[in-house]
Amino acid sequence: MEFTLEDISDDEISRRRDLYEPLTASVRELVDAVIRTEVDDDSVREAHRLVQAAVETLRAEQIDGSYGVRFSADLQGMPWGNAVIGLRNAIAPPVQTVRDSDGRVTADFTLGAAYEGPSDCVHGGICAMVLDHVLGDAGSADDVPCYTGTISLRFLRPTPLGSLHAEAVIVERDGRKKIVQGSLSDAQGQTVTAEGVFIVPKNWDGPMPRKARRPGEA
Amino acid sequence: MEFTLEDISDDEISRRRDLYEPLTASVRELVDAVIRTEVDDDSVREAHRLVQAAVETLRAEQIDGSYGVRFSADLQGMPWGNAVIGLRNAIAPPVQTVRDSDGRVTADFTLGAAYEGPSDCVHGGICAMVLDHVLGDAGSADDVPCYTGTISLRFLRPTPLGSLHAEAVIVERDGRKKIVQGSLSDAQGQTVTAEGVFIVPKNWDGPMPRKARRPGEA
Repeated sequence: MEFTLEDISDDEISRRRDLYEPLTASVRELVDAVIRTEVDDDSVREAHRLVQAAVETLRAEQIDGSYGVRFSADLQGMPWGNAVIGLRNAIAPPVQTVRDSDGRVTADFTLGAAYEGPSDCVHGGICAMVLDHVLGDAGSADDVPCYTGTISLRFLRPTPLGSLHAEAVIVERDGRKKIVQGSLSDAQGQTVTAEGVFIVPKNWDGPMPRKARRPGEA
Repeated sequence: MEFTLEDISDDEISRRRDLYEPLTASVRELVDAVIRTEVDDDSVREAHRLVQAAVETLRAEQIDGSYGVRFSADLQGMPWGNAVIGLRNAIAPPVQTVRDSDGRVTADFTLGAAYEGPSDCVHGGICAMVLDHVLGDAGSADDVPCYTGTISLRFLRPTPLGSLHAEAVIVERDGRKKIVQGSLSDAQGQTVTAEGVFIVPKNWDGPMPRKARRPGEA
């Protein structure tokens, strides 16, 4: 697991959050609008020109490669490029996880048109994506880092687009293995259940820094 | 499984494809650029204004709700809103599946910064998303429709961002169940393996129309 440390203050983190969060929110709107628009061809082309201009503006100066997993110097997590929770990633719904004191991880979020598979339903692969993340987060909620070994999902019924809830918790420990169970639900109850086996790295030799163990914090 | 039929010609489908494909490609560029940009604050705000203008242009007229699963009147598939393969969905990498004559489904695609989890690696949930789709496509490659019952994934090693290959095939049939196996690979070999149980609907009573059974065709 590789990390990047950035020597910046909490104020600087807040400043960057305030700068990028509204931009990313607008790009999420754009993704949705491209799917649902019914404007005439000239308007589509005009929107295309605007998007191209925005890309050119942003690409004038950029990092090589991907964002990486970054922490500030005092180990505040900044997983802003992450595909599921990233503050700067418009693909991320985003899912914001919350850890209870008993190690249970929960997340409430909304999935719209961009996450569709069957008509009006969440793509099964998106259900899998969210559950993989939430189970992984629960797997390291005990301050002992781990990586995903296996994950199994059972689809009980279609998951409707809209407001959803996911949760997960460690249910068993066996040597370097942690068994984590979780589920995805709508207002009527569970739609998908999941179980994963998470593995503690062989060379692990102590607790993770308290502030660094919270990848759910965007 | 609900579908929408649109009474349009092949020429009209081509026209719409030529209109929306470049726009969606630019939005994918934009998602990447928002993650990787290092331009100054004023330039970020300028990009934000351009994105907002594009959203307003496209939202002037739009459908209610999500795109749905559409076919043309002669049953050519148009899953353009789909989260994994959609022509109009910038979240979709897109993964374009190809079916061999023996029922094996393969897909070659590239995942960049927007699909990151661990540094320089594909988010495990994105691996799960792609494999869920490719296994599902393989599951119905025999003209008998099915839905996902369970899917299990084994993560062999981290999947690097970049060029990837996925494939899947039905390996066993047992009554209404089809067992499908597949994998995700980079140039060095498999990174994730998957097995799914797919279920044929109880009321299924005949083959699907040949042209309608190809959700992998964007």
